[in-house]
Amino acid sequence: MKFIKTPVKGMCDMLPSDMRLREHVLSMIKATYATYGFMQIETPVMEHIENLTSKQGGDNEKLIFKVMKRGADLQRAIEKGTGEYADNGLRYDLTVPLARYYACNREKLPTPFKAMQIGNVWRADNPQKGRFRQFTQCDIDILGDESSLAEIELITATASMLSKIFAEIGVTDFTVHINDRQMLSAVALAAGFEEEQIGSVLISLDKFDKIGLDGIRADLLQNGYAEETVDKYLAVYREVKEGVSIEAFCRDIPQDVLPARVRENLAEIIDCVKPMLAPGVKIVFDPTLVRGMGYYTGPIFEVTIDGYNFSIAGGGRYDKMIGKFSGQNVAASGFSIGFERIVTILKDHMQESMKLKNASAYLIGNRVSRERKTEIIAKAMQMRQSGATVTVLPMSKNVGHQIELLEAEGFTQFEKIYE
Amino acid sequence: MKFIKTPVKGMCDMLPSDMRLREHVLSMIKATYATYGFMQIETPVMEHIENLTSKQGGDNEKLIFKVMKRGADLQRAIEKGTGEYADNGLRYDLTVPLARYYACNREKLPTPFKAMQIGNVWRADNPQKGRFRQFTQCDIDILGDESSLAEIELITATASMLSKIFAEIGVTDFTVHINDRQMLSAVALAAGFEEEQIGSVLISLDKFDKIGLDGIRADLLQNGYAEETVDKYLAVYREVKEGVSIEAFCRDIPQDVLPARVRENLAEIIDCVKPMLAPGVKIVFDPTLVRGMGYYTGPIFEVTIDGYNFSIAGGGRYDKMIGKFSGQNVAASGFSIGFERIVTILKDHMQESMKLKNASAYLIGNRVSRERKTEIIAKAMQMRQSGATVTVLPMSKNVGHQIELLEAEGFTQFEKIYE
Repeated sequence: MKFIKTPVKGMCDMLPSDMRLREHVLSMIKATYATYGFMQIETPVMEHIENLTSKQGGDNEKLIFKVMKRGADLQRAIEKGTGEYADNGLRYDLTVPLARYYACNREKLPTPFKAMQIGNVWRADNPQKGRFRQFTQCDIDILGDESSLAEIELITATASMLSKIFAEIGVTDFTVHINDRQMLSAVALAAGFEEEQIGSVLISLDKFDKIGLDGIRADLLQNGYAEETVDKYLAVYREVKEGVSIEAFCRDIPQDVLPARVRENLAEIIDCVKPMLAPGVKIVFDPTLVRGMGYYTGPIFEVTIDGYNFSIAGGGRYDKMIGKFSGQNVAASGFSIGFERIVTILKDHMQESMKLKNASAYLIGNRVSRERKTEIIAKAMQMRQSGATVTVLPMSKNVGHQIELLEAEGFTQFEKIYE
Repeated sequence: MKFIKTPVKGMCDMLPSDMRLREHVLSMIKATYATYGFMQIETPVMEHIENLTSKQGGDNEKLIFKVMKRGADLQRAIEKGTGEYADNGLRYDLTVPLARYYACNREKLPTPFKAMQIGNVWRADNPQKGRFRQFTQCDIDILGDESSLAEIELITATASMLSKIFAEIGVTDFTVHINDRQMLSAVALAAGFEEEQIGSVLISLDKFDKIGLDGIRADLLQNGYAEETVDKYLAVYREVKEGVSIEAFCRDIPQDVLPARVRENLAEIIDCVKPMLAPGVKIVFDPTLVRGMGYYTGPIFEVTIDGYNFSIAGGGRYDKMIGKFSGQNVAASGFSIGFERIVTILKDHMQESMKLKNASAYLIGNRVSRERKTEIIAKAMQMRQSGATVTVLPMSKNVGHQIELLEAEGFTQFEKIYE
């Protein structure tokens, strides 16, 4: 029989110390989000293949793990020969399932609804350090709130949760970057780009951190845009200094492409969030922030740890997505944290792996009588009732090695029972 | 675009009240098992198809959700035309992945290793009330302990965990049924069945609860076994009274088919476990207990709630399974609880759905100033820091209905802010 010991490519077995860290972080996430009134929900890991390939998932749709039809359905598909062998797929994010969930269960839920989802997602991506084919996402979303209150709640909740988690490794300095898709569009329109070119222009602007403004210029010219338009467009960003105010940035953008309420909305979010942040946490208007997904319609935001050049959380408003699924428009805004990245950073900063606390072991020799054994087990039971971790194990021949391995997990008290 | 609102067939969306109950039960399970020194581990939901179809999973292997190959691999499979389109599958239990995990990670783990696994499994079964195609399993397993200590720890841990959970709905009376596969074999051999017939005979005996001894007799005769052998076999079970002792039951089974150590081992488990059980919980020798899976090799056990005729937990010793996977025999014994059944019973007994505690809501009217809003948010932040659940929401036009839906989730304090 062919047997494969290693996990499926790009996926991980979690050791006990991994799980202790993950469970610890998850419990902090759940507890913090719960105090904000986010309610945990869950959807099946499998979704109808039609829902997953509905063009909401962008490039992720190329990375779907498809689940095969079964029985007569599969037989028919094979006979038909059109290659449509899958009826389901594993979800590649938690947003598409949330849209389906809300369309299906809306009547039973408060409105606006504050959802918390913690679950695995799967993408058949090329595995890299810190990038896996099965990974955990933690999302909060507010459905049915079109006001800035949604973003204020999402950002304060996420910032306070991150502050709590990273305080444990002495990291207190974060930056929340915020921008608005309508502002991004307005700048492009004001420079002379057409409405339908905005998507492609933003794909170039999104490379700002990697290739800088000159790189973006080359990119846009290569895409065939007029030099004059490109230079007018980039001039706006060239003058931007870090910490630019919304007012200063918007001064030259005409009202007809950028309604005042967009500016005011963004300013309100920043003004309301700022006083709620822990010391060390900033919120800044970042006019070059784009965020990849095409479905964003309003404010977009990202969190970076000062000193690292990648984000650990990101999100934004996507008012049209649920409508595309259910036929009924629902305002929606969400924030997703990069759970695997956070766990990786924590692990890198920890002196040693996360250990058990208050744990003791009884090691029972093979000459111990039934009565003595019962005595030990009863004692262990009593200690467990007061919350201690107590294990009762047969003593190994190499008891020294046995104790070493238990110590590595955090056991500190050992009693060897010989008879 | 074709969009499907309902979840995939046989799978469930979890509402907030469902999740509160599930999370509550899971946290009790994790906390109790942790005090016994069981360590949580996790494996990917996908396993190599070779591992899943290695004849360890019995009938479950017919129910696998297969995951399709991708890219060039899929192309090659289609060109080959042999129909082998899947390289992975979703796990149908947590035992096969555990065997792979232990083969892969053994060196990094204490020995014996006490594993706790909580995770979803998938079976393409016909959905019924309380039977789903995605469901949660909670397993504890002890690997590398060939002594009765493994069963003693598994049973006391599971019984005390169940007592805690069901105490909340006033249910205290459980029965732990225990038997031994070697004892089942001995009775069949003593009656005159051949070694290789035992599997088939036990499949008939396993129907005891459904068809009784007369039904089993008809079943065995229909399978072509000699009437004399069948009657000699069933006579043993016909005389059994509830609460029969191991000694009384084994009196007529010759030593050469039933070694004394099997009897003694089972007696030791019962004697050691009995004094550890909470009031209302019994452990009884149940000579007709079979348990479906073919891989059991020693003690087998099941828990029933008095008054219900199905089990809520089951397990046993499977000393040969890991060896079949890894080439190296490892003693193993495990106990799995029927999480979905337990949740269903709890739900049936609860007066109302599980609600939030200490939860209040601020409902903000659309004329409220930015300053007043910031004030409310700051107040909410402070309350959250002391652990209260506080939500800040825009006031709906139909605020009465909005409050009703929030009350259904457990919110009890409401403050309406008009300006």
